Amino acid sequence: MTHYDKLETHFRKLSRLAHLDAICGWDQAAMMPKGGNQARGEAMAELAVLMHELATAPQLGEWFASAAGEPLSADQQTSLRAMERRWRQATVLPARLVEAKSLAASKCEHAWREQRKNNDWQGFAPNLREVVSLAREEAAVRAESSGLSTYDALLDLYEPGMICAQLDLLFQQVKTWLPDMIRAVEEKQGSRTYLTPEGPFPVERQKQLGLEAMKLLGFDFDHGRLDVSSHPFCGGVPTDVRITTRYDEADFMTALLGVIHETGHARYEQNLPVQWAGLPVGEARSMGVHESQSLFFEMQLARSGEFTQQLAPLAARILGREDDPAFSVDNIASFNTRMKRGYIRVDADEVTYPAHVILRYEIERALIQGDIEVSDIPELWDQKMQSYLGLSTKDNYRNGCMQDIHWTGGAFGYFPSYTLGAMYAAQLFATAERSINGLRDKIQRGDLSELFAWLKTNIWQKASTLSTDELIRAATGKALNPAYFQRHLAARYLA
Amino acid sequence: MTHYDKLETHFRKLSRLAHLDAICGWDQAAMMPKGGNQARGEAMAELAVLMHELATAPQLGEWFASAAGEPLSADQQTSLRAMERRWRQATVLPARLVEAKSLAASKCEHAWREQRKNNDWQGFAPNLREVVSLAREEAAVRAESSGLSTYDALLDLYEPGMICAQLDLLFQQVKTWLPDMIRAVEEKQGSRTYLTPEGPFPVERQKQLGLEAMKLLGFDFDHGRLDVSSHPFCGGVPTDVRITTRYDEADFMTALLGVIHETGHARYEQNLPVQWAGLPVGEARSMGVHESQSLFFEMQLARSGEFTQQLAPLAARILGREDDPAFSVDNIASFNTRMKRGYIRVDADEVTYPAHVILRYEIERALIQGDIEVSDIPELWDQKMQSYLGLSTKDNYRNGCMQDIHWTGGAFGYFPSYTLGAMYAAQLFATAERSINGLRDKIQRGDLSELFAWLKTNIWQKASTLSTDELIRAATGKALNPAYFQRHLAARYLA
Repeated sequence: MTHYDKLETHFRKLSRLAHLDAICGWDQAAMMPKGGNQARGEAMAELAVLMHELATAPQLGEWFASAAGEPLSADQQTSLRAMERRWRQATVLPARLVEAKSLAASKCEHAWREQRKNNDWQGFAPNLREVVSLAREEAAVRAESSGLSTYDALLDLYEPGMICAQLDLLFQQVKTWLPDMIRAVEEKQGSRTYLTPEGPFPVERQKQLGLEAMKLLGFDFDHGRLDVSSHPFCGGVPTDVRITTRYDEADFMTALLGVIHETGHARYEQNLPVQWAGLPVGEARSMGVHESQSLFFEMQLARSGEFTQQLAPLAARILGREDDPAFSVDNIASFNTRMKRGYIRVDADEVTYPAHVILRYEIERALIQGDIEVSDIPELWDQKMQSYLGLSTKDNYRNGCMQDIHWTGGAFGYFPSYTLGAMYAAQLFATAERSINGLRDKIQRGDLSELFAWLKTNIWQKASTLSTDELIRAATGKALNPAYFQRHLAARYLA
Repeated sequence: MTHYDKLETHFRKLSRLAHLDAICGWDQAAMMPKGGNQARGEAMAELAVLMHELATAPQLGEWFASAAGEPLSADQQTSLRAMERRWRQATVLPARLVEAKSLAASKCEHAWREQRKNNDWQGFAPNLREVVSLAREEAAVRAESSGLSTYDALLDLYEPGMICAQLDLLFQQVKTWLPDMIRAVEEKQGSRTYLTPEGPFPVERQKQLGLEAMKLLGFDFDHGRLDVSSHPFCGGVPTDVRITTRYDEADFMTALLGVIHETGHARYEQNLPVQWAGLPVGEARSMGVHESQSLFFEMQLARSGEFTQQLAPLAARILGREDDPAFSVDNIASFNTRMKRGYIRVDADEVTYPAHVILRYEIERALIQGDIEVSDIPELWDQKMQSYLGLSTKDNYRNGCMQDIHWTGGAFGYFPSYTLGAMYAAQLFATAERSINGLRDKIQRGDLSELFAWLKTNIWQKASTLSTDELIRAATGKALNPAYFQRHLAARYLA
C-alpha cells in the first residue's frame, strides 16, 4: 500500500466517524427530547476526541512527506493537497489553544443568550474580549504556518484562497453603488402596494408545500429528508442529506423560502462526486460556494418572476387559497422582492444584506488585526449602520453588535461567505442564462432539468477538485465580478 | 486513580460510543431514506470496530487483576464483576471466529429473506448448517472459558445464570399442563362471540392513541419518543428511549398493544439507576427480565379486564367510535384475550406462545449439543408442533422452521427469554397484587402510581446489581415458579 493509499484509507475512516457525528447532531437538533441532551453532549464530545485523534495522528506527517514523492495522477495530487490542507488545519493549533477557545466560546455564547435579551453590552464585552484575544492568537498561529496575514488565515478556513486584498476590492465596488441602489429601490417600492398572505396556514399543509417545492427543485428523497428544528440547517451526509425548517402558522413564505434555500445546499451535497466520497477533495468547495447554491435556489430562482409562475399557484393549491388575491403570481412576486432597511442581518432582503456583511467584515478584520478593540465596536457599528443603511444603533446593542452568534462562538472570517455566495450565484445564473436556450421560459414552465444539469456539471460534481477561483472561472469564463450581482439587483428591483 | 476507577472510566467511554451506535441504529430503522443505507452501514461498522477495540483493550486484563486486590465497596465489587463479565464475553472469541460468524449470519439472513418466501428449505439448509457449525464452535469456546456446558454458555449471553437443568424443570412443568389448558381454553372460547373492530383507523389517530396510552403508562416524553419502523423495537439510550411501532389502518389493536409492550421496555430503561449510568452494572438485568417488563405492561396489565376499563373508552374516544359496540369494555376484553393455535410464534397469544418457545428451545439445544443435525429440524419441528399445538408443518418450512430470524443470525439461546419473561411477569404481578391494597380497583381507575413505584423499586432501580435469581427472590420472596404463570392463564382464560 502506498502512503497515498494509506492516507485515503485514513481520511475515509475519519469521514465515517463524521457521518455518525452528522446524524447524531441532526438528531440532537431535530428529534431528541430535551432530557437527552446531557448524555448526547457527552457522547458527541467523546466522538469529537476520537475524530481529533485521527485528524492529528502522529504518523500522518511522515505519510504526507512520503506520498509527495510517489507517482500520483493529477487527481491524486489534488486529493493529496486537500488532505494535507485539512491535516495542517487540524494540527497547527496547540491543544491548549483549542481548549481555551472552546471554553471561552461556550462561556460567551451561554451568557450572550440572556445578555442579548437584556441589551447588556457591559456584561457581554469582557467575554467577547476573551474570545477575540484567543481568535487573535489563533490567527497569529495560522498566519505563521500558512504565510498569510492574520485575518486572511481565518478567512481561509471558510473561503480557501480568498484574501482581504481581493475582498476589499470586491466590497469597495459594492459600496460605490449599494447605498444609491437602496435609496432607488426604496423610492420605487414606496408607491407599490402588495397584499400580505394572511394565515393561519396549518403546519401539515406547509410541510406538504415544502415537500412539493423540494420535488420541483429535484431534491432526491431516497437520499434525504425534511424535518423541523428551531434553527433551520442542512446537515447529514451526501448520501443522506437532512434539511430542516420551522413553521409559523401566520407566515408560510418564510418556511417555504427557507426550505428552498436549504434545498440548494442539499442538492450540492447530494450531487458531490461519488468517486471522491469520504475524502476532503470530494467535499463542497467552501462556505461561499455552498451559500452560492442555496442563494441560487432561493434568490436567483425562487424569488424570480419566472419561478413565481410555478410557486404561487402551487402554494395557492396546497394551502387552499386559489381565490385569494394575495396568492396571485404578481402579488407573490412583489411580496418576495420587497426591500426594507432593517437592523437584523438574518431578516434582511437580498438588496440590503451585503451592507450588513460588509459592516461586519470591516469591523472583524480590524479587530483581528488589532486596529480596534472590543470597546470600539458599538460606535463603529453605529457609524457604519448610519452610513450604509441610514439607521442608528446607538445604545441598541441587542439589535446592533450583539445580534449575531458568529463572534460569540469565535467564527471570525465567516461573514464574507454570505455575500461572496450571493455574488457567485448571480454570476453563475447569468452564465447559465447565456448557456441555456430560453432559460427564463423554461423556468416559467417549471422545466428546470437543463439548469440543474448545468449546475451539476459546473459546480456540484467539481467538489473541491478546483480552487474557488478556478471553479468560478471554469464555470463562467471569468473571475468573480460583482457587476453580475449589481446587474441582477438592478434588473429585479429597478427595471 | 485506582484500577477500578480506570475501568469505570474505560467502560463509560465505551457506553458513550454505544450511545452513538444506538441513535444511528434507531435512525437507520426509523428515519433513514433507503439510499443512505450503504454509507450508514460502513459508518456503523467503523464504530463497531472502535467499540470492539475498546472492549478488548489489552490493558484491561491487568486492570481487572489489580482492581481485584483494591479495597472496594460492595457496590463496586458488584460493578467490577459486571465489567469483567462483559470483558470476558468480548475477548473470549478469537477474531477469526467473530468474523466468520458475522459473514455466515449475514449470508444466511440475506438469502433467507427470499428463501422463506419460496419455502426453499433445500437452499436454506446449507447456509444454516454453516451458522450452526460456527455457533457450536462459539459454544465450545465459551463453555471452555466459563465452565458451563455448551448450550448453557450461549444461554448465559441472554439470561445470565440460567442453565438447561433449571430450564428443563421449568419447561417440563409447563408441558404437564399447557396442552390441556390450550384445549380447555379452546373449548371455553368456542361458544364465545366477539366483534372485531372494523377499520379504517387513520394513522394519525392511531398515533395519538398510542401516545395517550404511553402517557397513561408513565412514559417520560422528556426522555424518549415514539416513531415508526417496519419492525417495532425499543432502542436509544436510558436518557432518550426510542420506541417504534407500525400502523395498519385496518387494525389499530396490534399497533396499540405493540406500543404498550415497548412502553414496558422503555420504562425499565428510563428508570435504570442514574448513579450507575454508563456501566454494565447499571444496565437492564437480562433479556428475560427485559421481556418481563414488556409483558407485564402488555399481558398482565393492558389485556386485563381492569385496564380495559381505561383502554377501551380511550380508544373509542380517540378513534371516534364511542357508539361502536366493538369498542365496549367487554368486547375489547374478549378481543384481547382470544386464543388461537397457529404456526407463527410472533402472532401467538399468551397461552399458546410458550409452546412455540419450548419447541425452539428443545431443538436448538439438541442442535448445539450435536444430538441432531440441521437436516433433522423439519421432522422434529413437525413432530413437536403436532404434539404441543396439534398442527402439522410437514413441507411447510416457511411457516415452520424458517419463520424466525434468530437462528439465521446465529442467536441460539435467545428463545427461552420470551417465556422466562412471561413467567417473571406473572410472578411479579401476583406479588404486586399482594403488596398493593386494592390493586385491581386502582388499575380499573387508571391509578397506576403505586404499581409503577413497586416496579421501579423492585426491578428498574436494581439494574444488574443482583443476579436474576436474586432479583426475583428479592422482589417476590420466592425463586421463579411457573405456577404463577399457570394461575394467571387459568384465571384469565378459564375462570
